[in-house]
Amino acid sequence: MEPAFENIQAKGVTLPEQAAEQISKLIVEQHLTCEDKLPSEFELAEMLGVGRGTVREGVKLLVARNVLEIRRGKGTYIAPNPGEIPDPLGFVYYPDQFRLALDLAEIRLQMEPWVARMAAERATAEDLKNLREACRVVEQDIVAERDHSKNDVLFHVAIAECTHNLVVPKLIPIITYAITLFVSLTESRLKAQTLVDHREILDAVCGQDGDRAAKTMERHIQYNKAMLEELVAELERGKTAEG
Amino acid sequence: MEPAFENIQAKGVTLPEQAAEQISKLIVEQHLTCEDKLPSEFELAEMLGVGRGTVREGVKLLVARNVLEIRRGKGTYIAPNPGEIPDPLGFVYYPDQFRLALDLAEIRLQMEPWVARMAAERATAEDLKNLREACRVVEQDIVAERDHSKNDVLFHVAIAECTHNLVVPKLIPIITYAITLFVSLTESRLKAQTLVDHREILDAVCGQDGDRAAKTMERHIQYNKAMLEELVAELERGKTAEG
Repeated sequence: MEPAFENIQAKGVTLPEQAAEQISKLIVEQHLTCEDKLPSEFELAEMLGVGRGTVREGVKLLVARNVLEIRRGKGTYIAPNPGEIPDPLGFVYYPDQFRLALDLAEIRLQMEPWVARMAAERATAEDLKNLREACRVVEQDIVAERDHSKNDVLFHVAIAECTHNLVVPKLIPIITYAITLFVSLTESRLKAQTLVDHREILDAVCGQDGDRAAKTMERHIQYNKAMLEELVAELERGKTAEG
Repeated sequence: MEPAFENIQAKGVTLPEQAAEQISKLIVEQHLTCEDKLPSEFELAEMLGVGRGTVREGVKLLVARNVLEIRRGKGTYIAPNPGEIPDPLGFVYYPDQFRLALDLAEIRLQMEPWVARMAAERATAEDLKNLREACRVVEQDIVAERDHSKNDVLFHVAIAECTHNLVVPKLIPIITYAITLFVSLTESRLKAQTLVDHREILDAVCGQDGDRAAKTMERHIQYNKAMLEELVAELERGKTAEG
């Protein structure tokens, strides 16, 4: 089964890059998982017919891409979620973070009410237990006046996990990228609203009420989007006043 | 503005990893783009207060992650889409590629009709020119009996670009990951349907008919999903017969 992604350096691929490609193929073909140790540098060099230096550089590439991980005193293993990296679309390098946040809000508004509906329809008792816990952790953060942004993302991921779709929980950290930026810029009124909204979404999912879950999620994201638009408008006015 | 993603190796971060982090910060803070050359190893070592060996290893990490690129005879530059990598969710390592394809189809069905609607509503003359060309290239592939999967993905990306949402075109290659797998497994009847569907989607977007664009796209993906389900059912029956 051919991988569907093209190699980024299809032309002029370096030797370490080729070794990384071969090792990656080995992982795929032999169905290696995070419980599996990678063959030794010596064995890999034999298998791939390249020098140990090339293998070492190839392994470094795959460690940088989170396909492999080095466990201290144990050796090199397949990573738990191989090939999954933080900020996979390089959002941190986008010059206009507000434009990015607004475009993400547009996507969230389309995706997340649908995700909440599926969550309500498909969640198991175990899923609901995890979701309740995820909700509680955000509430604790807000009450203790800690930054709740990371746990807020995890609450939305917990909803996505209720869908049992393999990919939806992976998309949530991407489309909620702006939450951290946003939380640090908005005031406590957003926090109070978050408490109320999350609790209502939780109740709807637990009650297997897909319509209500979708509607509540929509309202939650609409509210966040409106706050963001307000913030951007304020900043625009500020710029105009300065200029 | 704090980046919203956590460092994957927050604990026990190696020196090269710290150097990579610092260089990444430098790119963000100084708004460096693909036209900018990275400061020299010597300058970076001075700026970060680390050895040149550490800088070199840090740069290698960022090259592996497509943040930097080495241009032969020119030096190290910021990559065109820094931090964007192929297969950013590591789909190639998923053990069940059919389950993955079905879950992706579910997401496509929710996302892409909406994307087609926005495309119809927002496309400029320039966008339409690109979209027509993208459609033509797929048609040429199919007529010439070449593998059209890569250009098929690019057709869907071209639709996404009509939305002028920064992120939507980046999500399309992720959710259409299974197209390659699928194209290689299905017969010519899918190709004929692709020709008809793509042409109809193109017409709807060019005619600024959002409803029709969304409906046609939905039918296109429903058809693909049904074919995929049939294929999976056939394989399941094969397995049962064998066992």
